[in-house]
Parts: sequence; C-alpha cells; structure tokens
Amino acid sequence: MKQENMAMLCDFYELTMSNGFFKNGFYKKTVYFDLFYRSVPDNGGFAIAAGLEQFVEYIKELHFEKEDIEFLRNKKIFDEEFLKYLENFKFTGDIYAVPEGTPVFPNEPILTVKAPAIEAQLIETYALLTINHQSLIATKANRIVRASQGRTVLEFGSRRAQGADGAVLGARAAYIGGCKGTACTLSDEIYNIPAGGTMAHAWVQMFDTEYEAFKTYCEIYPENSTLLVDTYNTLKSGIPNAIKVFKEILVPKGIENFGIRLDSGDISYLSKKARKMLDEASLPQCNIVASNSLDEYLIRDLMTQGAKIDIFGVGERLITSKSSPVFGGVYKLVAVEDENEIIPKIKISENTAKITNPHLKKLYRLFDKESKKALADELCVYDEVIDDTKPHTIFDPEATWKTKTLNNFYSKSLMETIFKNGELVYELPKIEDIQKYCEEQIDLLWDEVKRFENPHKYYVDLSKKLWTIKNDLLNKNKFE
Amino acid sequence: MKQENMAMLCDFYELTMSNGFFKNGFYKKTVYFDLFYRSVPDNGGFAIAAGLEQFVEYIKELHFEKEDIEFLRNKKIFDEEFLKYLENFKFTGDIYAVPEGTPVFPNEPILTVKAPAIEAQLIETYALLTINHQSLIATKANRIVRASQGRTVLEFGSRRAQGADGAVLGARAAYIGGCKGTACTLSDEIYNIPAGGTMAHAWVQMFDTEYEAFKTYCEIYPENSTLLVDTYNTLKSGIPNAIKVFKEILVPKGIENFGIRLDSGDISYLSKKARKMLDEASLPQCNIVASNSLDEYLIRDLMTQGAKIDIFGVGERLITSKSSPVFGGVYKLVAVEDENEIIPKIKISENTAKITNPHLKKLYRLFDKESKKALADELCVYDEVIDDTKPHTIFDPEATWKTKTLNNFYSKSLMETIFKNGELVYELPKIEDIQKYCEEQIDLLWDEVKRFENPHKYYVDLSKKLWTIKNDLLNKNKFE
Repeated sequence: MKQENMAMLCDFYELTMSNGFFKNGFYKKTVYFDLFYRSVPDNGGFAIAAGLEQFVEYIKELHFEKEDIEFLRNKKIFDEEFLKYLENFKFTGDIYAVPEGTPVFPNEPILTVKAPAIEAQLIETYALLTINHQSLIATKANRIVRASQGRTVLEFGSRRAQGADGAVLGARAAYIGGCKGTACTLSDEIYNIPAGGTMAHAWVQMFDTEYEAFKTYCEIYPENSTLLVDTYNTLKSGIPNAIKVFKEILVPKGIENFGIRLDSGDISYLSKKARKMLDEASLPQCNIVASNSLDEYLIRDLMTQGAKIDIFGVGERLITSKSSPVFGGVYKLVAVEDENEIIPKIKISENTAKITNPHLKKLYRLFDKESKKALADELCVYDEVIDDTKPHTIFDPEATWKTKTLNNFYSKSLMETIFKNGELVYELPKIEDIQKYCEEQIDLLWDEVKRFENPHKYYVDLSKKLWTIKNDLLNKNKFE
Repeated sequence: MKQENMAMLCDFYELTMSNGFFKNGFYKKTVYFDLFYRSVPDNGGFAIAAGLEQFVEYIKELHFEKEDIEFLRNKKIFDEEFLKYLENFKFTGDIYAVPEGTPVFPNEPILTVKAPAIEAQLIETYALLTINHQSLIATKANRIVRASQGRTVLEFGSRRAQGADGAVLGARAAYIGGCKGTACTLSDEIYNIPAGGTMAHAWVQMFDTEYEAFKTYCEIYPENSTLLVDTYNTLKSGIPNAIKVFKEILVPKGIENFGIRLDSGDISYLSKKARKMLDEASLPQCNIVASNSLDEYLIRDLMTQGAKIDIFGVGERLITSKSSPVFGGVYKLVAVEDENEIIPKIKISENTAKITNPHLKKLYRLFDKESKKALADELCVYDEVIDDTKPHTIFDPEATWKTKTLNNFYSKSLMETIFKNGELVYELPKIEDIQKYCEEQIDLLWDEVKRFENPHKYYVDLSKKLWTIKNDLLNKNKFE
C-alpha cells in the first residue's frame, strides 16, 4: 500500500488520446482541466474534499517503467516516437486544489490542472479515482459523526471495503470526516489514523465459558478492555459476566476505562437495559459501544429514542458509503492556450446538468462578517478579483433575475497552488490538522445546509464576466 | 498494485486476540473457521465466488517486517515474546475453498481454514476483504451480463471505484462475471483483462471542429475507432460527422470494425435514431456503444424497448455494485481441536440469521442426472459421504417436515484443497478459464434461481448428522 508508480492505472483511452496528441503536435499545447462533482451523495447539502495527498504522491512518482512501455508496444497501435516520449515522461504542469477537508459544492472545481495536453490527459483516471473515493468516504463519515452529536465514532469497515485501498485510505478519509479512529492497523501504521480493537466472537468461543474468556482478556489488557457481550445471550450471560469480571479484575485496580460492545439484536433496547444493569452494579464509568449495521439514519433514530450508547463502531455502511456509494466527480477540459491566450472551452450535452463551466477560474467563498457564516461561493474568471470592501451583487446563474447584494462580507480564495511547473510547492498538512480544519470549516456553514434530508441549496454563483463567457459559448454552439 | 505483504492489513483486534492466544497457550490449538455470506446482493438468487487468487498471494507472502513489529511494540500492549513469535510468523495450516467463478449460496462455506489459533485469526480481515470485494463485483457483473442477452459488456468504472484495488481487481472480478474487457490499463498489464478505449470528450474539444477531431482519430486508429458523438449535439452534429468520416476514411479501406458511442441523453431513443441514420448511410456494420449510468435494470428496460445497442460500457454502477455495494461475508469459528478430536462450536445470536453452522464440513452440490441442473446443496460433517447410487432424502433445516427424495442424481464436492500444511497445493486457473467455468456453472442453475427479482430460493440443506449436532449445541446453550 505504500504509494507506488500508478501511471498505468489509467483508462486505456488516455493512452490512445495521448498518442494522438503526440502525433498531431497537440502535446505541446497547454490545456486546463477542472475536476468537480455534480451532485452531493445522499442528497446532502455539501461534500468534503479529500484524497489530495494521495494524488500529490501519485504525481510525484509518475513515470513509465520499461515493462509498461513494452506492454504498450505489444498493443501495436502506439507510435514508436510516442513510446520513446513516455520513457522520460513526467508531470511538468501546475495543479491548484482546495485543501483536504474543505466543504465543497456541486459544479465548482476541487482541482484544476494546467499542463501540456498529454500530461493533463494521462492523469485523469487516477485524479478522479483518488478524489472521488476519499471525498465519498469523508462526506459519509462526516454525516455519521454529525448524527452522533458528540459521541465517538470509530471506523470498523475494513472487511467489507471494496479492496485494500478501500479499507486503508477509506479509514484515512473517515478520519478527515471526523471519526476518532479505525480498526485498520495498516491505516495507523501508514497514515497515523489511531487504530484500536479488542475482541471478536472467536475469542469468547475459544474458552470453555464466557466468564473465563472475559476474565482472561481483562487480565491481559487491564487498561483497555471492551468485552463483546453477544456471543451467547447479551442480557442473561454477556452483561452479567462482564460486570462480574470488571468488578473482580478492573475495579479493584482503580481502572476506569472499560466497556462492553453490543453487536446484534435491537441496539436501542439492549443499550438501555445494559446501562441500567451497569449502573445498578455501580459501573457508571463503563462505556457502551454499539456496532451493528449503523449509519447516520439509524444513529439519528437511536439518539431520538434515547439509546444509551457512548461509542459507535461503524462498518460497512461507512466504508462503502452504502446508501450512496458513488462520488460522481468528473474531469473536464475548460480551456486551451493558443499563442499565450487562454481560450475557454465548453462541453454541451443532451443532459443540461452535464454542461460544464468553461475557462480557467478562481473559486471564492463569501462570508458574512457578523455571523462568520458562509453566504455563497462565486466562480470568477482567473483574472478577476472580488473587492470585498464594496457592496457586491451575486445572482443565480440559472435564474439571473434572482440577485442578492452583499454589504458586510469578506471573501476567501479557496484554491491553493499545489504544483508549479511540475514542482510540489504545497506543504501537505498533518492528518490531525486536516480533521481539525474540516470541523472548523463545517462550523462556518449554516445549519440549514447541513440537514440530512432536503437541505438548503447553497449558492454557487458565476461572476458576471464568467456567466457571459459561458452564455456566449452556449449560443455559439447552438444547433437548430 | 503488485501483491505485497499485507499482514498489517488486519483489524487491530486480530492482533490483541493473537497476543492473548499466545499468552495463554491457545496459539498451539488447531481451530477451524468458515468464510460464508448471509444474503445475496440485490436480493438475487446466488452469488459468484471470486478473490481466491489474491487471497492465495496474500497467504504466500504473509510475514511481518521489522518495522511492523516495531510499530506494534510502540503500542506497549503486546508481549515481547509474542512480538518475537511474529518475526518468524508464517501460515502453516490448511485452506479449502470453492474455485473462483462458482455460484455460491448463503450460509455455505466459500473458504474453510484449519490452522493454529493465531494464524487462523490474523488472516480474517484480509480473507474477508478480498473475497467480499471480488465476489460482490463478479456477482454484479454477472447480473449485468445476463441482462444484456449476449451483447458485449465492458467494464468502464475505474474513475468511480473505491480506491485503486477497487478499480484494478474490480475489473478482474467483472471479467470473471462475464464482462469481455475493461477500460483499466493496469488490469490488463497485471491480470490479462483485455483493456480498450478510444476517446473522451476532451479529444473532440481539442480540435476546432468535431469533424476534424473524428477524422484525425480515424486516420491514426483506422482499425479501432469508436467515435464519441455527444460532445455538441448527438443527432445534429455527432452522428452526421461520424458517418462522413467513416465513409471518407474507413469504408474505402474496407475496414468493417468501427462504431459510435452514446454517453448522454435518452439512450433508447438516440440508439434507434442512430441505427436508422447509420443504416440509411449504408453503415450497418457500425457498432453502437452505450455508456450512461447503466446497470442490469436499465439494460433490461433498454432491451425491452428495442434499443439498438451492440456494446454496453458499464461504469460506476458495476464497479461499486451501486444498488447493493456490500457483500456481507463473515468469518466464524466453527470448531476447535482438543486432543485430536474436532469439537464443533456455534455462535448464537439475538438475530436468528446470525447463528452459524458449526463443525468442519463438506459442501456437496446435487445435480439431476437427466436435466443436469443443480437440485440443491448439502452441508455434511467432514467425515460423511453422500452415496449417490441410492435414493437420498434431503430436508429443509428450518422446516424439517419438508423433505424431498432424490433418485436420479449425482453429487459433486465443491471445495478444493488450496493449502496443505502451509504449502500451496492448488494450481490457480487462468483468468479466461475462470470466466468460462463461471458461465458453465451458471448454466447448471434453473432459470428460476436466476431471476433478478424474487428468485426461487435454492436449497442449502444440512445432513441429518450435521443438523443434529447444530440442534444439540443450540439446546445446550439455551438461556431461559
């Protein structure tokens, strides 16, 4: 899982197109691509951008090995000169991106690439793959964390992940979204996501009695025992045995940090019963961990019903974003340079939603000075500056008569320069800092945007200049 | 993506339990685990087992590096003797499994592990991860392939996969399930899954006109041109330009293999219009490829509506199994050896569906001699033999009065020995052979089991002996 060269993890058409660009001289043309997404998973109000660090590693390592080129040669469709060119291939362009952990909205760039055509084209698949995957899981994790209202959420899903990266990087993304830890050991070793865990049913089954299994565990791990109480019968066997062992082994040592885990049955009912039994046994410090098919919807219901759960262990529904398992990021050509002029490009479509925002752009977030909350995002042409000392009128790009004038606001440009002329110029933040930044940025959104169902649609507007360019391109390409 | 040592890709509790087994001497105890699943994705009638090859590679490579052990040492909860033991850790047990591509049903073992407790425990997460993931995608791919009624299905989903393995091994699993190829170059290079692809919208946008873009492409790749016709306007620009270029460049050369690709709009309507335009232009040989949010449900509807599609390119809904993105395989202790006796173990649960089938078992599939179709599967105790020369009565394990006597049948044991005493004794089949085997085995199932919705529930019965053992264990563990 250590990052290797992933140049060949690309759709085959990236290579046929690149060979084509090479043959007709386009490979020297500088082009601009935007990576953006079109709709929020789970019909939520926003997504969390994640995966940039892995994309950076990919760009740094990007090259073709001799055997890769030999593999391509055997396809007998690539030009020999192109294959030679691949021998020394590396990324020489610029990359701009919003930092990991930023809340992002549909149709605004998460990443912008400026590079010679082949370079910009070849990196498409991996850019999408890594940002789609981690943004999906960070977004889902954040929903689950918000549903849990301050209780600890742990990521438990490795075994149901869609492949090894799904598990290891999924745990990383879940941490960005607010999970406090993971069950995945490798994610701790590589990415410093705190891993933890105690026992499975097999531990209990290995012993002649449940009591003996619990006792042995608490003797070995007095500082960190969470006993799984549902192997035989939660209320009649598991919890009574756990109470007995806690009182015999841990309480006399003055240990306060222990718990039980519920993994089947009705978690709401069982947690309330368990809490009562534990409290009556004078063990109010005992944590109750629940881990049975949880997601934000079930957790919200459990909270509403007053379930007595301190820690949620969330597995398959988080690590696959089960209720919405695709983050539909796309990577579209938005401009081409011609004699040092940037020519905006558009992709029209039968599906109106698939029409792109052309040109090299800047992305601003506008905040209310008083409440500090985010009011809207605005996409501008790259050379525009928003003057936040003056009143500023924004308008709905689809219903232009809907306008709003902002008076007391400040603007923040969201994209950072990551690579400049192929050199990494961005300092990758620590994972803890990404998590913290993410939480802070979400605090700047109105609650209405954070609703799970039917959230308020946050404004992503175009500047007058950009809107005009887009409309002109649409009219120019009209078919009657 | 080349298989590396993945020992650390395990849930942390595998390590805490293993350290515990080490400390109390259980690590010498031989245990038996079954890997099985509980319900078919998409409420289908069966799943396709896949992922065994990657599990085999994992077992072969399994060891702990110095830095892994140092990482664990820093956790300050593991016994120094246990960490020393990990230095020379390797797998020494036996593994039995159904071959990849086998249709499998709920609650029957896909994989059985016999090994000393620590070894059997530590491999849990990765075994589940790899078999869950690939079985999920192979199962989904097979549904999509069956919906396509003989038309070619290609896997196009890398960019929406949940991580790099999701893409590369997902393409492998999709091929097992019946896809004819993939867009993923790396999956071709590593696993020989044929990769292909021609152009994205960016190719078209790079040229001054669509006509020029198409012409250039056909000149460079005369043998394999599929032109993407929806960049500006499918019917008014894309298809007319494609027809013009085919007739100017390819038809004069006698080339017969070319096509157009529809990627947006109403695929049913557009494909019929396209077919008509192509036929009227005397291009009946031109293939129509469709690739817009397809899955088995939409393909079935398109077929019913008489859409004129020759090749389906299926992306996100296949590579994530979007409508059912979790394969719920579990790995459960079923027996423990004690003084050379195999003691069956059971995991009871509040959820009846989570109760396990105890003991070391054999899995038989019973076929009707006349129709050759599979009649039922039967789980037996490991030392039982089904005598298929005599009438054989099977019964429903949940409604034991429902019996059926088979007269003209033959039985086949489904599990192969993969590892014996830590040595690989199984020859891994070629990927093409797995695909072929999968198709043949599915042909042996009744159509009723293959329905997408509400399929006939295939019988997975227990032998009398196994049923009695299970029932005795349940009664023994009863709580009143």
